[in-house]
Amino acid sequence: MSDPLSSGATIGILGGGQLGRMLSVAAARLGFKTHVFEPGGEPPAAQVAHRLTTAPYTDADALARFAQSVDIVTYEFENIPTSALNIIEKYVQIRPGREALRVSQDRLSEKQFLQNLGLTVAPFADVPDHDALEKAVETIGTPGILKTRRFGYDGKGQARLKTPQDIAPAWADMAGQPAILEGFVEFTHEVSVIAARSPQGDIACFDPGENVHRDGILHTTKVPARLNASMRTDAVLIAAKILNALEYVGVLGVELFVTRAGLIVNEIAPRVHNSGHWTQNGCTVDQFEQHIRALAGWPLGNGSRYADVIMENLIGADVKQVADLAKEPNCAVHLYGKSETKPGRKMGHVNRIVK
Amino acid sequence: MSDPLSSGATIGILGGGQLGRMLSVAAARLGFKTHVFEPGGEPPAAQVAHRLTTAPYTDADALARFAQSVDIVTYEFENIPTSALNIIEKYVQIRPGREALRVSQDRLSEKQFLQNLGLTVAPFADVPDHDALEKAVETIGTPGILKTRRFGYDGKGQARLKTPQDIAPAWADMAGQPAILEGFVEFTHEVSVIAARSPQGDIACFDPGENVHRDGILHTTKVPARLNASMRTDAVLIAAKILNALEYVGVLGVELFVTRAGLIVNEIAPRVHNSGHWTQNGCTVDQFEQHIRALAGWPLGNGSRYADVIMENLIGADVKQVADLAKEPNCAVHLYGKSETKPGRKMGHVNRIVK
Repeated sequence: MSDPLSSGATIGILGGGQLGRMLSVAAARLGFKTHVFEPGGEPPAAQVAHRLTTAPYTDADALARFAQSVDIVTYEFENIPTSALNIIEKYVQIRPGREALRVSQDRLSEKQFLQNLGLTVAPFADVPDHDALEKAVETIGTPGILKTRRFGYDGKGQARLKTPQDIAPAWADMAGQPAILEGFVEFTHEVSVIAARSPQGDIACFDPGENVHRDGILHTTKVPARLNASMRTDAVLIAAKILNALEYVGVLGVELFVTRAGLIVNEIAPRVHNSGHWTQNGCTVDQFEQHIRALAGWPLGNGSRYADVIMENLIGADVKQVADLAKEPNCAVHLYGKSETKPGRKMGHVNRIVK
Repeated sequence: MSDPLSSGATIGILGGGQLGRMLSVAAARLGFKTHVFEPGGEPPAAQVAHRLTTAPYTDADALARFAQSVDIVTYEFENIPTSALNIIEKYVQIRPGREALRVSQDRLSEKQFLQNLGLTVAPFADVPDHDALEKAVETIGTPGILKTRRFGYDGKGQARLKTPQDIAPAWADMAGQPAILEGFVEFTHEVSVIAARSPQGDIACFDPGENVHRDGILHTTKVPARLNASMRTDAVLIAAKILNALEYVGVLGVELFVTRAGLIVNEIAPRVHNSGHWTQNGCTVDQFEQHIRALAGWPLGNGSRYADVIMENLIGADVKQVADLAKEPNCAVHLYGKSETKPGRKMGHVNRIVK
């Protein structure tokens, strides 16, 4: 696809959660229709999408019909089965491309990819089994974090090792799945860069945000982040290096640890990212529209920021605060339309415009 | 309905055009679902609404089913047949209420209502027939504008009278419909106030915008408008007087002529208004969310403005400029997803953030 996608075209979105929902709204703002593919019932994105297909990723017919009904496909999460992608790609282009998914679906490939680009990552070791974990702890030492190579998010599939005595329980936590051990990095804070690349290779970055997590889940993102000028430049160069190496099209999230020795890449997400939600109330073109613009071959927004913003996630019962939050001046409320409140579930977020 | 509507509730919207579309998106942002009722095919609002009913306003069964499927009903245009409203109101509350619709559906009632409130309006006369038009011209003089009492918008159903010789052709233009004659007002420019009232009687106004029309259709709205301090106060007081008199719940648009003698009320619209689209990129809570907040009984946004904005409508072939507009920094593009471009058709708008 070399011509820009025209208004009126349909964008297929794999995944019907809050990211798919906010992508749908952004697509509509540019005159596109969306068609959401989601195995689960009552997906939040379907409330604002033009069409919904409810089917598992193993349903080849449903995938083929979905692919034939849309002009391009994107996704809101990286753990889409390869078999599903193979079927879709017979009919229609997927953006961001397969290489970004291959790299980011597996923590080991991701670390190796970043290291091969000359970027600094935390010390890591491949841990296919219990013996390998013992060797890895000898090399990397403790404290460290054992993480499943695949399907981990928001702190899931992770076990901390404070001392070598934690090897057995940590390995048991992996339930036999291949893992990697990551060494402990002494960092002062975490920032993330939300960056976009167009099919022509243009790149635009939003200002880095500073992230605070609680219980392994993002709690707040604040812009501007605490970063000196040279780190601010580095953050952009790191993001650009990753985007170009992947010949990436769309929005990518890059999480970075800020250390005395410079920036260390924690992880990348080949999609719009929770730490970029602040852009909805700080930028003319937000991360969701930026992603749609990129994959549609439209000009990218320039990423410039007109306000300082603090984004705060509403997790589980936090959503009960909405009546009070709605009273706050300069506080933009964004709810995801999820019918059931569960502990740890992302129910919405607020963007507080602080300047 | 005295309790605030909870997230997850469904808001029914009568009318599936661009206003219904942007109301749907705003409702979703607060976690509400929307159900659009629209007689025409492929309504823009349906692309972002949870449900769509396609049926004429004369279909009593469809109206009853629609009303029973939602928690509250609002509308994007004022010319809804009374019979349809009667059916809906058997099942569910309509906000803004019936009185606002009754008054604004008829230019004569509207003028009389405004006059009875002590507000200044252009000289006007009831014109039920040709003879009445002759008498009205004798009283009011020329130039003047003859307008059908009902179903006029965007310059439709209007005829200008430059001299008494225009009486016959102007009356012919009305095609037998009852009309009113409005005298000519010497004004320097037009402004509009987008104001909201909550069920508890709280009122919040956005900054007045300055409107420029082309061929009877709004072309641009610019904030801030040229208004001195006392006129700025008057604009708010006028809007509040109208809202309170109607015990109004929701967003109302008030068009005002700026004259040397002060503000003259041109017309009111009991809904979100084209001249309030700038709020999408100038305010934390835009007019669409403000309307949803009001009818849901949520706290109103305070209407404060963080940027100067110029809104420009994309009418008909204007929409071809989108490729260039998307390149402009600080230019937010909003398209309505209309499949067919027609002369005079509102296809989208842009908000340029100028400061």
